[in-house]
Formats: sequence, structure tokens, C-alpha cells
Amino acid sequence: MPRFFRKSEKKAGSSPGLQIDVQAASGTEPEICVLIYSKDSLETYHLPNIDAAPSLIQKNKTAWIQVTGIQNHFAFSRMGQLFNIHTLTLEDMVNPAHPPKFEDFDTYYYVTLKQLAFDPGNHEISETQVSIAVMENLVIFVQDKPSPCLKAVEKRLQSGRGNIRTAGPGYLAYALIDAVVDHSLDVIGQIASAVESVERDMLEDLNPGHLEQIHRLKREVIFFNKQLRPVRGAILSLIKSESPFVSDTVIRFYADILDHVNHILDAVTSLQELLSSMLDFYMSSQGNRMNEVMATLTIISTIFIPLSFLAGLYGMNFKFMPELEWQWGYFVLLGGMAVIGSAMVVFFKKKGWF
Amino acid sequence: MPRFFRKSEKKAGSSPGLQIDVQAASGTEPEICVLIYSKDSLETYHLPNIDAAPSLIQKNKTAWIQVTGIQNHFAFSRMGQLFNIHTLTLEDMVNPAHPPKFEDFDTYYYVTLKQLAFDPGNHEISETQVSIAVMENLVIFVQDKPSPCLKAVEKRLQSGRGNIRTAGPGYLAYALIDAVVDHSLDVIGQIASAVESVERDMLEDLNPGHLEQIHRLKREVIFFNKQLRPVRGAILSLIKSESPFVSDTVIRFYADILDHVNHILDAVTSLQELLSSMLDFYMSSQGNRMNEVMATLTIISTIFIPLSFLAGLYGMNFKFMPELEWQWGYFVLLGGMAVIGSAMVVFFKKKGWF
Amino acid sequence: MPRFFRKSEKKAGSSPGLQIDVQAASGTEPEICVLIYSKDSLETYHLPNIDAAPSLIQKNKTAWIQVTGIQNHFAFSRMGQLFNIHTLTLEDMVNPAHPPKFEDFDTYYYVTLKQLAFDPGNHEISETQVSIAVMENLVIFVQDKPSPCLKAVEKRLQSGRGNIRTAGPGYLAYALIDAVVDHSLDVIGQIASAVESVERDMLEDLNPGHLEQIHRLKREVIFFNKQLRPVRGAILSLIKSESPFVSDTVIRFYADILDHVNHILDAVTSLQELLSSMLDFYMSSQGNRMNEVMATLTIISTIFIPLSFLAGLYGMNFKFMPELEWQWGYFVLLGGMAVIGSAMVVFFKKKGWF
Amino acid sequence: MPRFFRKSEKKAGSSPGLQIDVQAASGTEPEICVLIYSKDSLETYHLPNIDAAPSLIQKNKTAWIQVTGIQNHFAFSRMGQLFNIHTLTLEDMVNPAHPPKFEDFDTYYYVTLKQLAFDPGNHEISETQVSIAVMENLVIFVQDKPSPCLKAVEKRLQSGRGNIRTAGPGYLAYALIDAVVDHSLDVIGQIASAVESVERDMLEDLNPGHLEQIHRLKREVIFFNKQLRPVRGAILSLIKSESPFVSDTVIRFYADILDHVNHILDAVTSLQELLSSMLDFYMSSQGNRMNEVMATLTIISTIFIPLSFLAGLYGMNFKFMPELEWQWGYFVLLGGMAVIGSAMVVFFKKKGWF
Amino acid sequence: MPRFFRKSEKKAGSSPGLQIDVQAASGTEPEICVLIYSKDSLETYHLPNIDAAPSLIQKNKTAWIQVTGIQNHFAFSRMGQLFNIHTLTLEDMVNPAHPPKFEDFDTYYYVTLKQLAFDPGNHEISETQVSIAVMENLVIFVQDKPSPCLKAVEKRLQSGRGNIRTAGPGYLAYALIDAVVDHSLDVIGQIASAVESVERDMLEDLNPGHLEQIHRLKREVIFFNKQLRPVRGAILSLIKSESPFVSDTVIRFYADILDHVNHILDAVTSLQELLSSMLDFYMSSQGNRMNEVMATLTIISTIFIPLSFLAGLYGMNFKFMPELEWQWGYFVLLGGMAVIGSAMVVFFKKKGWF
Repeated sequence: MPRFFRKSEKKAGSSPGLQIDVQAASGTEPEICVLIYSKDSLETYHLPNIDAAPSLIQKNKTAWIQVTGIQNHFAFSRMGQLFNIHTLTLEDMVNPAHPPKFEDFDTYYYVTLKQLAFDPGNHEISETQVSIAVMENLVIFVQDKPSPCLKAVEKRLQSGRGNIRTAGPGYLAYALIDAVVDHSLDVIGQIASAVESVERDMLEDLNPGHLEQIHRLKREVIFFNKQLRPVRGAILSLIKSESPFVSDTVIRFYADILDHVNHILDAVTSLQELLSSMLDFYMSSQGNRMNEVMATLTIISTIFIPLSFLAGLYGMNFKFMPELEWQWGYFVLLGGMAVIGSAMVVFFKKKGWF
Repeated sequence: MPRFFRKSEKKAGSSPGLQIDVQAASGTEPEICVLIYSKDSLETYHLPNIDAAPSLIQKNKTAWIQVTGIQNHFAFSRMGQLFNIHTLTLEDMVNPAHPPKFEDFDTYYYVTLKQLAFDPGNHEISETQVSIAVMENLVIFVQDKPSPCLKAVEKRLQSGRGNIRTAGPGYLAYALIDAVVDHSLDVIGQIASAVESVERDMLEDLNPGHLEQIHRLKREVIFFNKQLRPVRGAILSLIKSESPFVSDTVIRFYADILDHVNHILDAVTSLQELLSSMLDFYMSSQGNRMNEVMATLTIISTIFIPLSFLAGLYGMNFKFMPELEWQWGYFVLLGGMAVIGSAMVVFFKKKGWF
Repeated sequence: MPRFFRKSEKKAGSSPGLQIDVQAASGTEPEICVLIYSKDSLETYHLPNIDAAPSLIQKNKTAWIQVTGIQNHFAFSRMGQLFNIHTLTLEDMVNPAHPPKFEDFDTYYYVTLKQLAFDPGNHEISETQVSIAVMENLVIFVQDKPSPCLKAVEKRLQSGRGNIRTAGPGYLAYALIDAVVDHSLDVIGQIASAVESVERDMLEDLNPGHLEQIHRLKREVIFFNKQLRPVRGAILSLIKSESPFVSDTVIRFYADILDHVNHILDAVTSLQELLSSMLDFYMSSQGNRMNEVMATLTIISTIFIPLSFLAGLYGMNFKFMPELEWQWGYFVLLGGMAVIGSAMVVFFKKKGWF
Repeated sequence: MPRFFRKSEKKAGSSPGLQIDVQAASGTEPEICVLIYSKDSLETYHLPNIDAAPSLIQKNKTAWIQVTGIQNHFAFSRMGQLFNIHTLTLEDMVNPAHPPKFEDFDTYYYVTLKQLAFDPGNHEISETQVSIAVMENLVIFVQDKPSPCLKAVEKRLQSGRGNIRTAGPGYLAYALIDAVVDHSLDVIGQIASAVESVERDMLEDLNPGHLEQIHRLKREVIFFNKQLRPVRGAILSLIKSESPFVSDTVIRFYADILDHVNHILDAVTSLQELLSSMLDFYMSSQGNRMNEVMATLTIISTIFIPLSFLAGLYGMNFKFMPELEWQWGYFVLLGGMAVIGSAMVVFFKKKGWF
Repeated sequence: MPRFFRKSEKKAGSSPGLQIDVQAASGTEPEICVLIYSKDSLETYHLPNIDAAPSLIQKNKTAWIQVTGIQNHFAFSRMGQLFNIHTLTLEDMVNPAHPPKFEDFDTYYYVTLKQLAFDPGNHEISETQVSIAVMENLVIFVQDKPSPCLKAVEKRLQSGRGNIRTAGPGYLAYALIDAVVDHSLDVIGQIASAVESVERDMLEDLNPGHLEQIHRLKREVIFFNKQLRPVRGAILSLIKSESPFVSDTVIRFYADILDHVNHILDAVTSLQELLSSMLDFYMSSQGNRMNEVMATLTIISTIFIPLSFLAGLYGMNFKFMPELEWQWGYFVLLGGMAVIGSAMVVFFKKKGWF
């Protein structure tokens, strides 16, 4: 499956919004888990389907509906009716290829993000789609498969520490987004470590394997950049949205996330520059080595080829070759060869070839 | 015919707007098909020429005039008079080389786009010009040759599902633009698959054919980018135009298209970076291989060239060469050669040449 | 004469505005041609100098003064006094090196442009400076040497078709600028054709001559870009200027020119990217060929150099070399050589060197 | 420890703001030093912990609290309570990896910066985190380890010259930030010297060591750029903040710092371009040298290989080889060889190979 | 002394503004020259020091104080007191490394620029710092060493032509800035000529010396760009400043300077692109030549190495080698060699190697 561009399953020319075709409607029903919490209480309900969820919501408590699995479009259509969600939002929720974005609607706002993870084994980044819709006293969280960010925030909610239980759905959404971005920080941290470790290796002892490592890291940095860059715009839109579901106190926290995202994007730029410099170093080192190899070959060849010619000359079987008859011919030739050879060596030394 | 820059046929210094020269006026008359639809009805008329179209238009129904073929400028001139279309718009409609744009006029707005298709056989993108003029209860759609986006939307109109029949000409135009952009998604998806498949191949087993593949894909990505980038500006202008023919509900859908276009452009940037990295990898791998080849040649040459010289030396026919007379001369020489050869091997091992 | 940066003749530290030094004042007097036109009439006057021009201008007609030749600064100074033109404008008019710009004054606006032409013989772009000052019912057009854009517009004026005769000086200026930009479209079209033709040639059969072609085309694209890019700013300023001499109907036409300029600039960017990709392809193909050549040399050398050594060994004249005495020594050696040679061939096959 | 991306210690999904976990709470207590000064007095107090600090603050004097050491999060938490500091600010203060930023709160503003130092020995830039919170008559300065900028400003305060004692906390903060930026000026100055000295060396006598020097300098310039670029935004935000703690007279001085930062960033861009040009020069010089080496090898080989073949030919032991019997055969051959050799030399001369 | 980044002499952490340390106070006293002029008069005074200058200033005349030499900080401090100049301005005036900028104060505005000169001998740009402070009826001009721009403007003032004598201090400042920018035009003109001349040489007959020329020109273009780019911002700030010392008529002239600066910056970009293309051409031409050299070596070697082997074979001294005894053995072998050699030649011809 291509990683650098994945098309949604929507057919060209079909209606916009969620399409409930037969195949998608028969997909596995998503797992529904609803958490109802206030300062002092936290109740967890596992539901067979979404229909029972609205009745659980209470006036003075915040509800968090966790939806895991996006195959069954029919379930999402029902959810859309129950909670008054726009069909375009539903379409985005079930599209695992949608890039990060923020969208503001009258009765809710919607954020979709990529949760990234780096597999140091095959040096590849994997992604999970995560969507968050924030309403008056409700957060709907949709994920394709179980994601660590949800677990982390759920744990914090259970511990009840901090103001997560009292600060309403806007703060819960912030906590989830923050967890997703923090995971990106982990990923870029691992990539940065890998890049710098390859760089140290290269400077110590260059070998051909470094080339593939550089290429693979470059590819992952490009991929990471592609997945993270839209997050900046999404958070910025969220901050500037003036949505009634984003309170002023939470904005300060979103500004903090924006700081982190900017920090990551700066690091990505630096890493790309560093990888380019590493590749230049690799290629030039290749050139250096080629020069060394060629100089060796040339020195040896240009010294011995003329000498071998001379030896061949006096190995000829002509009947009349006066030099061969001379008493000291052999030694004169040896002397001449020594002179020629030494002259060559001096010549190459002077040229700085060794 | 050049693909990267095609000039319109307009002669430098001629009047602006549609030129009705003799040759262009005698071109094939375009095919005219008119669809008149409302919530409950859909009528299709195939007309011999454009003149009968105005009389078909009804107050409470939306009309969609499909014009296929742009050779006969005279027909377009008549259409301009019938529907009060600006001469510059007519000029753009019959110019298959015009880049995507949005333009807002008093009585209509005008969008021109490129419908793209990727031929996996010769790895080339082909394009069809598509123009849409949206008036009060009328959409005029002009295409050079039959295009799949029209078929898809027509089918949707016939099925009557969704709100396409009731939402007026603005929504019909949106549906057409959406179909065109969706086709671009298909194209970039195919290119992305091709790029990633070449990359996998390269990492497994590099061969010289990959170079041409990389170049061809680069060329198509450049071409794709050139064709799609202006679409962004066109959609943005459409959203910001405050044209009376763009209703607020439709703007939400256009924002969705804009999202897709941005997604594609991000993917294009990533693919360009990935292709660059692939080329760097290719070139450095070449260098690696050259180094390996050269090292082999140099090792063999520098070991045997001096030894051959020695052999040549004792093949000389000088009368007086004392070594030749020695009982063990031959074996001493063989021993000496073995020592020299081994020393060379050790030397190259130490240098890390093999 | 340098093409990429030409300084005006103004001396550093001299007064701003037109300098009437003795040398420049004695230059050839410019050719003056005045066209006075209205809907129904067109009169053409060839004047010996500029002084008679003002008296020809009539209230209800538009005047077009064509000035060919910019050597005689004295004539321009007189023109400045007659028509109240700022000294900086006059300085720009006589400076053939001035980049394109728009400037708005109280009583007129001023546009200077480069008319470009591509000489397919030496693959070089040449330029002619063209200046246009638009006043209430007057257009002053200044050119260094006769330019095709003037001819094209003059012809249109003579034919009287379209609204060029009735739409006033703003429309005449538009027609001239449009003609200049259309010539640029021709030039980039020819360059694009040349680039794509070199690319096709390269993919079919690469030869060293392509390198120089690529470089020359790159140079011309850089030059073209340098000459055209400021035009965008000039047209934008013109559109936004709110000058009383730019009517609303004309602005629509200028927007059309802007479209063309943007289209050209997009094409320039694509061509630069394509040329870069072509150069990369060229260089990598060089590398491929070098690898092939080197592999051939290495295979032949490493097979025969050791065999030649063995032959040389048994060509030595030592008195006591037992192998030489053996009955089957020669054949054993031949066999050994065959084994060594075959082993080498197998080794290189395995390495994939041929 | 990676230099190009360091993650803070915050765990993904944990609460925002300062985390007081057991380990961090048991870290070394920071060193606290408080300076209370006015026009005529300066008192210095070394405190065992932060708790005694508030009581030292006087109405008409400015207080400067210097905190050295960021391990003990508990101490920072207490400081936050005492001086009403936001938990996100506290989190940033104890995070040595936080990039430079400015943040404006109701009761204070907060600036964090990197103090850079260049170690000419290993050609690496090291950094110290420095944080400054400015309140009504108080500056809190936090550093990880003792930094030279603090010393320089303290000395100026002790001397009492200039208006540092009278201009309030805003001016003290400015003096600290100015000192930090001045250190960056030193660092880029040293890097620029190193770059230009390598460039001079290269042009005089290129050697393979220059490659590693270029790469290392490139890496440090990338690192420097990454650390300094956010400072520009921080200072700009500070100037535009309209914080009550930034007076108009101080803004003029901040504009001066901004000037310096812009100057540095311009220099960084130029150095990056210069280093790229140097690398290009290095790689092309390699190519030149390779060409020279190869030409030498080729000339010698192509002259002597055919001659050696001829010598070998007449060294064969065929019974019937008529040339060998000729009286002047040997001399004819020598003459032929001289002709062939000279012809080759002339051929290579003509080709310009030496 | 580094050219690409020069730090001012200010020590990190010292007070902002002019520092009067002992060493700098004892520097050579600057040369002071005061010109008092009005429409009809021009008086020149050479003063021993700055103190006498204020008394020379007259109500209805414009004063121009020329200060040459910036070593004596004490003199500048006195000047600051006499004319009410901000300490930061004084600091900038005596700092020869300060980049170009404009700064607006209540009682004056301040511009600092680099006067550039190109030494065609060593192909290096040199710079002189020039500062201009414009007050109500006074211009203070500070230069490190005598600069040609001052001379040019002084001459114009003496000639009294144009409106330089009547247009006040704002116009005098304009004349000085214009002269400085005009010198930059000269410099870039010379560089452009040098670049284009190297390019022509390269296309005619490439030689290794071109590489160093390209690198040196690139370096100077980078340097030029670094020195000129901030001028754009300075002039823009000046135009937008609404300072009472910048009259509306003068703004038109500043817009003209801005035009020139933009023109130069466009040329710089084009030259950088052209130099890059030239380097690419150089490197690929190297590759072409390497290919040619290697092909020659390979052809000769692969033809003669196998033939030499055969000759060596029949030069062996085995007692029993049947071929040697054959009557026509020698001629058969010669024939065989001719066949092998010709086959090889045909093979290489087919491969297109020569």
C-alpha cells in the first residue's frame, strides 16, 4: 500500500459526504466505549452500538465517546444523525488517508490528526488516523485501531489529578491532541538520534552501508514532514477559530502545542539539511577513495609498463641484436631501469600523488 | 506537440477575445446536449446547434448545457450572444492550452480546469480542457472531447440520489469540479505507487533502467504540479468571490475540494523530495560500484604487473645473466614473487580495499 | 555587451533624471510618427521632430505618438517639456537597460517593457526596450528600434475592427502591452519546444552534445525569467493603481494579460525543473557508461594479466626449470590457464558485472 | 545525547505544565542569589532556597533573582506559587531542550534563549538554556549552569555606570538578552573565520582533509541556524507585545538587538551558500585530479601496451619466423616502435590530454 | 580579517550605545569639513574638530558636515552631545561592520550603507562604511575613509546645476544614497561581465582554471548579495517612515533608487543561477572527458592484452610445444591475432565507444 499518497475510497464523481455502500455498511461494527465524568465521578460504559450513547449523556457531566474501528459506514451514518454531525465530517472520519485538519461547524468543531510511531527495526514510520469532534458537553473520539494516546489520556482521567475532569470537553480534546503531538516528538527524537548516530559512524569509518541508511532516513523525514506539516495549520485554525467550544484558558495550552509543532518542524528542516550534508560528504569521500585507488593503479602501471616493455624488448629472438652480446649489457639495462623507475617515483612524489 | 507550454492560437497583436477567423469558423459544429432538471424531473435534449437551447430553459428548473468540441469558433460566438458571455471567456473556452482559473463576471462565473489521466503504459499524463460557466439557473459545460467527469455527474443526476437535483446550478458546478479534482487524486495516486515501487526495486537490486524510470516519473510529477497548482488559486478565488452564484452551503463543499487540492500538492512536494533522494541514492550507488570495480582492477594489476616485469626480466636473452646460471635461481625468484605478492595482498587488506 | 546586467549610462553621483550631455544630445534625431484616430477617421503624420506634435492633438480624438530611436537625449528633453513628463520618466525612456516597471504620475502613467525574440539559430533571446506613457487623450510610445508589436497594433488600428478605435488611449496601451506579452508567449513556446525535443533525443540516444544544449537552454530560461518576472509586478501595479487613465473595462483585459504572465512564469518554473532533471539524467547516464566501460576493462585485465604472468614465467631462461622439461608441461599449463580464466568469468558473472 | 532534537522529559499524554515527579523533586536544590538595587545601592543575598526571596523585595528597588540549576522541580513549583508564575512557564524553565520563545502573561512576560559557545577544539557549538521572567519590579533569571552573560551584566550592575541601575527590570532583561545575542555574534564570527580560513587553504592547496572540515562547519552552521532562528520571532513578539513591562525607551534597544539577529541570520545564509560553493569546488577539483591521473595512466598504457605486444611477438619461439632471420630486423622493429610511440604522443598532444 | 561576518568591537554584556574606552578615545581625531550652502552661495570650512561646527550653521542655509575617520570615539561622543544624536546611532557610526539600515528618530533619521568597489585584479569586492544623519537643515555624513560617492556629490553641489542646492538636506541625503547605489550598479556590472566572459570561454574551450574562476565569482556574488540585500529594507523603511525630513518630492526619487536596488537583486539571482548552470556544465564536461579517456584506455587495453597473452604463450620455453614446430604456425597465429583484434574493434564500434 503506498505510504506517500493514499486515496480515499470515494469514487470520482460520486456524491460528497459519507457514502453508505453495501460493502462498507456490512463492515465490523465499531467498538463503542462511553466515559461520563465530572469532578467527583467517572463512569465507563461499553456499548454494543452507538444508539444507546445519547441517553447516557448528562447535563452537568462531560461525556467522552470512544469509537474504535471505521469499517462500518452505516454505524457512522447513525452517529451522524444522533449527534447532528455534517456528512463531510463523517466522510473524513472513516477515511484513514485524510491529512490533518481543523474544521469549525456550528454545533461542534472537528480535528483529525495522525498518530505516528517509529519502528526502529525496519526504520519506518507507521500512522494511525485519529479524529476528534468537540460539542457542548461531549467529545467524540474516533480511531481506526487502539492508539496509545487514548490510553494515556484515559489513565489521566481515571487518576483524576490536575484539572482534566473539571475543565470540560475542550480541555479533554486538548489533552488528546497534546498526546498525539507528544508522540510525534518521540518519533522525531528517534529519527534525530538515528541520523546523528549514522553521522558519527560516517566520520569515524565510512562504509557503503551508510548510503542506504541515509536514503532511508531521508525518506522517513520526508514522510514525517508530510504528515506533520498540516498539523501546524490545523492548530493555528483551531486557535483563531473563535469557536465557542475553545475557551480562552485552553487557547494558552494550544499555543503550547503550536510551540512544540514549530519546534519539530524546525528540527525536521535541520535534519534534512544535515542529511544532505551527510550525503555530500559520502559522495565526496567516494571520490576521495576513487582518487586514491586510481593514483595507486596509475603509479604502479606507469612505472612498470615501460620497464616491462624494455624487458620484453631484450627477450626478442632476433638473430642480430648487438646489445645482447655485450658483456655488461644486462647490468647496463638493470641500471637504466632503476634510473627510469626512480625518476617516475620522484615525478609522482612531486605531483603529490602519494 | 509540446506539453510543458502550449501557446493558444491567438496571433500576437490581434484583438483580445474570441477571434472568428475563417478557418476556425468552419470547424466541426460542437455536439450540444441540454439537461433540464428539477427535483422530480429530468429531460435530455440533443440539439443540432446551440440556437435552440435558450428556449428550453425554464424558470423553476436548472438547465445544464453540455458542449463537446471547441473547433467551431462561430458556434461559440453565437453562444456568447445568446447567453451574454464575455468575449474573453469565449476565447478561454476554445483555447485548449489555457491554465486553470476562476473568473467572476456580473451575470456568471467561469471556471476552467484540466481533467488529467495517467497512462501507465507510456507513463505519461494526458489532459482534457474542461470549462464551466455558472449562471442564474444554468450551467454551461464545455469540453474538448468526452470526459469521464461529465459521465459520472450525469449518472448521479439521473439516479436523483442526494441533493444534486435540488441544490441548483452552483451545486452542479461543484459536483463537476469535485469529479475533476477526484480524477487528479487518482492520477497522483498512480504516480505515487509507481514511485514507491521503483524505490523498493532500487533498494533490493539496483539496475541502470531505474535511472530512466526516475527521470520519467520526475517529469510527470513536474507536469502534474504545473497543471494542478493553479487549481488551488482558482478554488480559493471561487470561495472568496462572494459571487451570488456561490451559496454558503456550497462553500463548505468547495472548502472540502480545497482540502483535497492541498493534500495533493503536499503529496507532490513529498514525491519530488523522494525522487530527488532516489536519484542521489542511484548516483551514489553508481559511485560505490565504480569504486568496487576499480579496486578489483587495481589490486589485480598492482600485484601482477611487477611480477610480470620480473618474469619478463628473466626472459631476456642477454648472453651474460648470472642469475640464470644459478642452480636454484628459478626457485629463489618464485619465492621472491610469492613474498611480493603476499605483501601486496596484505597491504590492500590493511587499506580496506577488499 | 553583457546581457545579464546592463548598467544605464548614467554616471554614479550625477543628478537624477535625464542627463543632456553633449554626446547624447548630438545623437540621431528620433523618427516621429503621429496617428490621430477616432471611430471613423485615422490620420498618420510623419514629423521631422517632436515639436510639431502637440498641435496635431485634437480634443475628441486619440493621439498616438510613436518615437523610434533613443540616442538623442535633447529631443526627449523637449518632449518632456511639451507633454509635461517627469525627468525620471525621460531618463527611463532613453535607458535601454531599464527593467520592466509601471509608474503612476499625476498627469500620466508610464509602463516600460521588454519585447523579446528568440533566435533559433544561436539559441539566444534578444530584447528591445519599449516604453508607453498614457495621458488623457494621448499615448506616447517609445522604442529603440522598430518592433513587431507596434506594427501589429497599428495594423489593427487601420483595419478599425473591434473597439480599438473607440476605447481611448488606455485601451491602445493595453493592446500594445498585450502584443508585447504575446511575443513572450511565442518565445517561451519556442524554448519549451526546444527543451522537450532535446529531452526526447536524450531518452532515445544520449550524446555529449546534449550537455551544451541543456546548458544553453538553461541560460536562456534564466535570462527569460529575469526579463519577464518584473512584468508581473508592473501589470499588478497598473491594475491596482486606480489611475484615472485605467478604466474599469480595461482592467478586465489587464487581468487577462496577468493570467498570461502567470501562465508563462509557471511554465518557466516547470522548464527549469525539467532541465534540472534532464541534467541529472545526463550525469547519471555518464556514470552508467563509465561503469560499463570500467567493468569491461577490469574483466579483460583481471582475466589476462594473471595468465600473461604465467606465460611470462615459463618464458624465462633459467637453466634449471623442471616444469619445462616435463613431457606434458605445456598442456598442463594450458589447462590450468583455462581453469583460472573460466573461474574469473564465473566470478564476474556472479558479481553481475556483465 | 542528540543535539539536533532533544525531547523534554515530559511523558506523552501526561498533564501539561510542570510535573513534580518523585525523581525530579529530589534533584539538587538550585542556587539562589538575589540582587536588590536602586540608583545608589546594590545588595547581594545568597539564599539557601527560594522561600526567603519575596521578603527581600522592596517597593522602590529592583530585584534580580538568579536561579542556577533546574533539576529540582519542587523548588520551581514553590517559586511558581510565590511569584504567581504559570505552570507552563515553569515547565519551560526546567526543560533544557526548549527552543527560544517569548510569551506574554498578565503579570509578567517570559523569554527563553540559548546561550551558545563555540569550542574551536572539536569545532562544536554547545548551548546553555537561559530563562528570564520580568515582573513589575523583579527579574527572575534561570540558568542550567553558570553562564557568562549573567556575569557580564552583574559586573555592569556593580560598576553602576550607564542607566542600568535606574532603568528598571525591563532594562535589566534587555541587558541580559543583549549579552546572550552578543555571545551568538562571537560564535558566528568564529565560525565565519573558520569557513573563510578553510576556503583560503583550499584555493591554495586542496587536500582531502578539507572535506571533513567543510562537513563539520556545515553541520555547525545548520545547528547554529536552528538555535538562533526562533530568537528572531521571540524578539519580534516582545517588541510587538505591548506588555506593560516593556517600556518605549527599551523598545528602541530591542530593535537594536533585532538588527543584530537579522545581521547574524544574513551571515548564516551567506555562510551556507559559501560552504556549498566550497563543496562544489572540492568535488570538481577531485574530478580535475581524477582526469589528470587517468590521462597519465591512459597515455602511458596506450603507448607501451602495443609496443610490448610487438616485443612479445618477436619473443615467440616459432621455428619459422622469417623476420627474426633478417639482418636488420631488430633495427627495423625499433624504428617502427619509435614511429608508433611518437605518433601516439602527437595524437594525445593534439587531443589536449597533456 | 573575515569578510563574511565581522563583529563590532563591542564586548558581549557591555552597555549598549557608544563605548568610550581609553584606546578608542585616543584614536586619530576625524577630519571635519563643513559645507554651508544655499541657492546662491557655497562656503567650505575645514575644522580642526567638531566643536566649532554648530556655530557655522545658519537658519536659511543647509549645512553638510563631512566626518572622515571613525577611530576616535570621544569625538563622536562630543558630536552626539552637540547635535543631540542617540547613543545607539553613534555606536553604529563608529562600527565599520554594521549592515545597511534605516532608523527614524524624533529629531533626525539615520541611514548607514556600504559603498562597494570591485577590484578586477584579485576579483574581490571591498567595502567602505558610510553613514548619513539627516536633521532639520543639516546632513552629517560619516565615512571611514575618503569615498568616491562624497566626491561626486560635492562636485555636483559646487557646479550648482539641478536643484541640489535648493532642495534641502533630504535631497542631499538622497543624492548621497543614490551615488552609493550607483556604485553598486557598477560593481554588479563588472561581476556580470566577468561571469559572462567566463561562460563564453568555457563554451569555446573548457580548462581546469575555469573552476576556480567560477568559485571566486560565486563567492563574490554571495558577498555582494549579503551586502546589498539589507539596502532594500533600509530604503523601503525610509520611504514608509513618514519622517518629517523626507519630503514627498524626494520620495519619488527614493522610489527610483528602490527600482535600481530591485533591478540589482534580480540580476544577482540570475547570476547565481547562471553560475550554478556553469558549474553543472563544468562538472558534466569533466565527466564527458573522463569517459573519453577511459574509453580510449579500455579499447587499447582490451585489444592488446589478450594478444600479448598469446604472444607470451608462444614465447614459453617448454620443451614440447607442438605448435612451435609447425611450418606455418607463426603465420596462423598472426592471422588469428588479426581476427581477434578486428573483432574487438568491430565490437567497440558497435557499442559506440569511438
